[in-house]
Amino acid sequence: MSRLIVQKYGGSSLADAERIRHVAGRIARVRREGADLVVVVSAMGDTTDHLTELAAAITDQPDPREMDLLLATGEHISGTLVTMALQAQGVEAVSLTGPQAGIRTDGSYGRARIANIDPARMQREIERGRVVIVAGFQGSTDEAYEAAEVTTLGRGGSDTTAVALAARLGADACEIYTDVEGIFTADPRVVPDAQLIPTIGYEEMLELAHQGAQVMQTRAVELGWVNDVVIKVRSTFSDHPGTSIEEVSAVELRDKVRAMALDRKVAKITIVGVPDHPGIARSIFEPMADQGLNVDMIVQNVGHDGSTDLSFTVDRANLARTERLLELLGKDLGFTEVQTDAAVAKVSIVGEGIHNHPGYAAQMFGALADEGINISMISTSEIRITCIIAEERIDQAAKAIHRTFRLQEPESADDAVGASGG
Amino acid sequence: MSRLIVQKYGGSSLADAERIRHVAGRIARVRREGADLVVVVSAMGDTTDHLTELAAAITDQPDPREMDLLLATGEHISGTLVTMALQAQGVEAVSLTGPQAGIRTDGSYGRARIANIDPARMQREIERGRVVIVAGFQGSTDEAYEAAEVTTLGRGGSDTTAVALAARLGADACEIYTDVEGIFTADPRVVPDAQLIPTIGYEEMLELAHQGAQVMQTRAVELGWVNDVVIKVRSTFSDHPGTSIEEVSAVELRDKVRAMALDRKVAKITIVGVPDHPGIARSIFEPMADQGLNVDMIVQNVGHDGSTDLSFTVDRANLARTERLLELLGKDLGFTEVQTDAAVAKVSIVGEGIHNHPGYAAQMFGALADEGINISMISTSEIRITCIIAEERIDQAAKAIHRTFRLQEPESADDAVGASGG
Repeated sequence: MSRLIVQKYGGSSLADAERIRHVAGRIARVRREGADLVVVVSAMGDTTDHLTELAAAITDQPDPREMDLLLATGEHISGTLVTMALQAQGVEAVSLTGPQAGIRTDGSYGRARIANIDPARMQREIERGRVVIVAGFQGSTDEAYEAAEVTTLGRGGSDTTAVALAARLGADACEIYTDVEGIFTADPRVVPDAQLIPTIGYEEMLELAHQGAQVMQTRAVELGWVNDVVIKVRSTFSDHPGTSIEEVSAVELRDKVRAMALDRKVAKITIVGVPDHPGIARSIFEPMADQGLNVDMIVQNVGHDGSTDLSFTVDRANLARTERLLELLGKDLGFTEVQTDAAVAKVSIVGEGIHNHPGYAAQMFGALADEGINISMISTSEIRITCIIAEERIDQAAKAIHRTFRLQEPESADDAVGASGG
Repeated sequence: MSRLIVQKYGGSSLADAERIRHVAGRIARVRREGADLVVVVSAMGDTTDHLTELAAAITDQPDPREMDLLLATGEHISGTLVTMALQAQGVEAVSLTGPQAGIRTDGSYGRARIANIDPARMQREIERGRVVIVAGFQGSTDEAYEAAEVTTLGRGGSDTTAVALAARLGADACEIYTDVEGIFTADPRVVPDAQLIPTIGYEEMLELAHQGAQVMQTRAVELGWVNDVVIKVRSTFSDHPGTSIEEVSAVELRDKVRAMALDRKVAKITIVGVPDHPGIARSIFEPMADQGLNVDMIVQNVGHDGSTDLSFTVDRANLARTERLLELLGKDLGFTEVQTDAAVAKVSIVGEGIHNHPGYAAQMFGALADEGINISMISTSEIRITCIIAEERIDQAAKAIHRTFRLQEPESADDAVGASGG
């Protein structure tokens, strides 16, 4: 049996005919070395934005079912073009839509979950000697057109498609190609001496992604973790080996901060004078969840006089909707006031070693204090410490913290963890 | 049971958000009057050209299967947008891809024929009270994604979809909406006093379409004829009743030229010194047919000295390919010379009455002679006379012939044929 490799190429890697030919060239090279390939593609460049704008010109409340059928065309287009480019380079190939590739989902339009994958057609095409190009980000609710609805998987859906296919097909490798060389200790646009991380654990990657690192989406990482799929994040435009996301030994990573993440799109909300009785938090956050308003960090101060203050963060894009909802709730629940700050940002450090080393928190707060940066909220997990600060200080904070934890220094042999280290 | 109307809107009727809203408004009006509706849509404006260009930037020999999967997205996009526009106007609607609508075809990519239509899903959506929007121009080879390939029906495919659906669903009306008010006695851009024709027979319409009238494609007219579907051709932008294509009584139409058609995209080829023996025509035209090179008019002169001259016309776009093929054939078959003329055009008159009235040919030739226009080829059918002339004289010829047959005069009550006349 040949080696089976699942690759995924993002939209910026497929933005025009030249890049599509370049991607086809990379696929062709791997194919000529003898591997079987299933390649997941995103929509070209800004196609998805363009389709969304078409819908927005028609209505501000597009039907989710129609929206999914509309958006799914973006990946059909890139899939057929990559296939044609491969064929033009003499490589046998065929493109399959997500439904044709056997990807079955639930019926949650815009954020469907993969229910199962029927690999029969992909396997048949592989046996015929073809590279199989699969439209990412999509599936269908049934295997027959008569009953099927087309669904999309939501943000980062093509990464999810790739990892799910790698798991289902038992692929020997799962490679996510993007426009950066891998996962870095910080965003190199902010911290110029940020280092590429050769290997990172699933949990660390999840925390980074969740705290704002944009390279990989959390769902795909979770799926890789659950299914033990080693995910390589690599650049479409270089031969750098990139970053491997895999199960790593916590022992060898002790006492190490691995990377930091920044998130600028945050808003902070403080509810002043919340009556301090059991169930009050649920009365606030349950209605928000019902409306799809995700709450991130939550901090509750010690109460006095029977009331307390409650602070939390939301996506900045959801601030206005959240405020409107809280105004309604306030009448019933008896808040004094709702204060908002849309000009905050999150800075986080992540590393398996953090829970073994309480001193890291003090080091991080000290680095910010030395720069005269005020911390307005703090949240921690076993492997992460996050601070909310003023957005305008975020670059300065990032550089100081990066330096404090010496992330610009390549990991030493003692710290480094290879696939053999587990 | 409600009245069921099948409508079809062409790409220019759906070119932008404003036009899509306008089309939705028309559909909504009919819906509110109580009719059930199945609406077939073409791709928006120049979407199909844009998709074709994307493929052309990748390869000059796109795989037909991939091309069909690519082109089918154009109608998915317009279908979802029309549906959203209807919903925004408070009308329940759902868009179905061709495959979802149950349209099964053979596997001839780019020119698939409809094999059968399973109307179950459309009927279910209608029973739910929804307007059903169907992506035109496409189908699939199977009802299960696992086995199905997406196909397109070729030029005029959306008209074909509409007529086929009207036939299968037993619709009470089939309305083709376009950017002109109906079928005219001549192209009004060339002959300003051309008249709209209220009713025309299938055969007349077929001849007109075949000879260059662009409003309706021949396949859709044929399908309507075979299935007795009355086809209304109307404007998206007015309330004019348009033209009805239906079975008409030949008796009532006797002695009437109904309309004329022009075709500028013609090239003429003359093969000089063809050996005059049985089978020679097949030796020339069979290889052309094998390569998909359609021959239109064929004229063979009386032979002398054992050889003859053979003239025929082809689509001008196919001239270079035809010449290359004839060069190859010439070596085996022993032609003396191949002459070509890419600057010719066809002018035709069409009418059920023509076969009853030999004088029409003389009148047409006389009209051209009076203008000093030379005729280089003539072809006739029962209901049509066609002349090949120099392309630069085509507008002048059209005006003269239109005048000769007094087509600018509205049809008199004696000539006019209504649905009750059959």
